[in-house]
Amino acid sequence: MILALAGGVGGARLASGLAQALAPGELAVVVNVGDDFEHLGLSISPDLDTVMYTLAGIHNPETGWGRAAESWHFMEALAQIGGDIWFRLGDRDLAVHIERTRRLRRGDTLSAITASFCARLAIAHMVLPVSDAPVRTLVDTGAGEFSFQDYFVRQRCEPTVTGFRFEGAAEAEPSAPLMRLLETGAINGVVICPSNPWLSVAPMLAVAQLRAFIESKRVPVVAVSPIVAGGAIKGPAAKIMRELGLEASVLGVARHYGALVDAWVMDMQDAVLKPAIERGGFAVALTDTIMSAPERSLNVARETLSLMRRVEVR
Amino acid sequence: MILALAGGVGGARLASGLAQALAPGELAVVVNVGDDFEHLGLSISPDLDTVMYTLAGIHNPETGWGRAAESWHFMEALAQIGGDIWFRLGDRDLAVHIERTRRLRRGDTLSAITASFCARLAIAHMVLPVSDAPVRTLVDTGAGEFSFQDYFVRQRCEPTVTGFRFEGAAEAEPSAPLMRLLETGAINGVVICPSNPWLSVAPMLAVAQLRAFIESKRVPVVAVSPIVAGGAIKGPAAKIMRELGLEASVLGVARHYGALVDAWVMDMQDAVLKPAIERGGFAVALTDTIMSAPERSLNVARETLSLMRRVEVR
Repeated sequence: MILALAGGVGGARLASGLAQALAPGELAVVVNVGDDFEHLGLSISPDLDTVMYTLAGIHNPETGWGRAAESWHFMEALAQIGGDIWFRLGDRDLAVHIERTRRLRRGDTLSAITASFCARLAIAHMVLPVSDAPVRTLVDTGAGEFSFQDYFVRQRCEPTVTGFRFEGAAEAEPSAPLMRLLETGAINGVVICPSNPWLSVAPMLAVAQLRAFIESKRVPVVAVSPIVAGGAIKGPAAKIMRELGLEASVLGVARHYGALVDAWVMDMQDAVLKPAIERGGFAVALTDTIMSAPERSLNVARETLSLMRRVEVR
Repeated sequence: MILALAGGVGGARLASGLAQALAPGELAVVVNVGDDFEHLGLSISPDLDTVMYTLAGIHNPETGWGRAAESWHFMEALAQIGGDIWFRLGDRDLAVHIERTRRLRRGDTLSAITASFCARLAIAHMVLPVSDAPVRTLVDTGAGEFSFQDYFVRQRCEPTVTGFRFEGAAEAEPSAPLMRLLETGAINGVVICPSNPWLSVAPMLAVAQLRAFIESKRVPVVAVSPIVAGGAIKGPAAKIMRELGLEASVLGVARHYGALVDAWVMDMQDAVLKPAIERGGFAVALTDTIMSAPERSLNVARETLSLMRRVEVR
C-alpha cells in the first residue's frame, strides 16, 4: 500500500492520478487538517474536501476548491441578511460542512466521517485526515500572526512570511486508521505530493508518529516537486520560499525536505537542475508534472511509482 | 399600533395585508415559535421565516413556506453523502438558518436577530417572536406524543390528536420588544390571524403576559376565521377539530376562543352561520377570506381593521 501525503489542489491531482494507477486498497491518501477552521458555526476541512471531491470526480477544475457546476444562492441570500461572506461556500459544498459539523458534535471522529462520505461518493481508496485532533496552522508574518484562512483568503497571502506554528500538532496522534497503517507494516512506500511544503505538508509532518515512520526509512519516500520553473502551479509556495530566504526551485524544496525524501519527480522545464539534485544523493525522474487533466495526473503518478520501484531495488 | 398574532402561511398572508393597509410603525406581527426546532445542528424558526419572507415579498406562494425561485442543490448533495433529508431546506433559505444559529450561539436574542434580518430585507413593520425563550409544541395523539415537526412533517398530521403541550411556555416571558409594547399602552387593537388555533395561536396565548393583556379587554380583539366551509385553507385545523370532538366550522372556532375575541371576520361561504355567531355576542364581518393574492390579503386586512373600529366605538 502506498501512503500519499496531500494538501489541496496539487496534492488532490496527484492523488487522483495514483487512484487511477493503483487498485482499490493499494492507496491511502493522508490529508492535511492544518487549514481546518470554524466558520459560520460550521467545521470546514478545505483540504479533505478538495481531495474527496477530486477523487469522486465532482471537483471544480477551474477554482481548485469546491464542487463542479456549483451554485451560489446561499451566499447571495447570506449577503442579503448581512452575513459574513469573505469565505465562499457553494450550495452543494455546504452539505459536507453541515453534515460534518453535525456528526462531529455528536462525537464522531473526523476520520470516520470522512470514510463515510467517501463511501457514499464511491471513492475506492482510503482518505485519512492526518489526525482526528485539531491541528491549526498559524502563519507568522511581518504584520503579525494570522490563522491560516485569514492569511490565505482574507490577506490573500500578501504579508511577508517569517515562520509557522502548528497549534495542537505536538499533542496530535495520527487518526485511528492512519495509526493502524503505520503500525501494521502495510505501507510499502510514501509519496509526498506537490503540495505546499510549509503550509500543507509541514503540518502533517508535525504529527510525531507519522514523521517518525517516514524518518525511520523503512520504506522509500518519493516527492513530486511543487515548484516548476521557479514558481508554484498554484498558491504561495514560491513567494514563501523567497520570503524565507530560500531558492524558489526544486533544489530549494529538496534542501528543505533533506534526507526525509529519497527520490524526486521534477518537471522537464527544470531539467537543468537535475544534476544538482542527483549530486544531493537523490534518484530523479523528469517528466511533465503540470497536472492540468486526469491523464496527466495518471502520467505523473506512474512516473512516481516507477521511480519508487527503482529506489526500492537500489 | 395593531398587534397581529400569526403562525405560518395564513397568518403571514393576513400580516402582509395589514402591512399594506397600515403605515410603518402601525403594525407589530407577533409570531409563534412553538414550531421552532433544531435540525442538522441549525436553529429553525419556520413561522418567523414564513412571516418574514412573506412581508419581504420573497416567499414561495405555492408551498406556503420557504423562498420563491428556490434551488435545492444543498439537499441533493446532502442526500448524496447520506444526510437526513426529511425536512427540506432550500439553498437560499439556508442563509437565515445558518446565520440565526451563529448569532444565537454568540448570545443574541431571537427577537434581535429577527429585527436585524427584517431591516436587511427592508420590512417596514415589526416582526416579533412571541418569546425569546424556547416554547416547544408537543402533540399528544393516539400513537403517542410527537414533537411538532415530527407530527407535522414526518407523520403528515396523520395520528389522531388528543391534546397539546407547550413546553417552556409557562416560564417564557414575552420577547423584550413585545414586552415593551404590552407595557407602554401603544397597542390599540389585536388581530388573531387565520392561523391554526391549536398549533399556531395557542402556543402564543400560553405566554402568560400576552394572554393576560388580551384577557384584560383593554383593546378590541378581532379574529379572522381559519375555517372556511368546514375546512382549513391549508393544514390540519379542521381535522384536529373533528378529532377533538369539535364542530369544524367558524362556530367551533368562535366557541374555542370564547370571550377572548370580540369580533369575527368570516367567509361569505359561511354566511348561513353569521346569525349563530352574532347570537354569541360577537360583531361580524362577512367577506372573501381566501387570500390567494396580495390584493385579497389587503381586502381582508381592511375588513378586519374596519370591524375593529366598529367594535371600538360600541
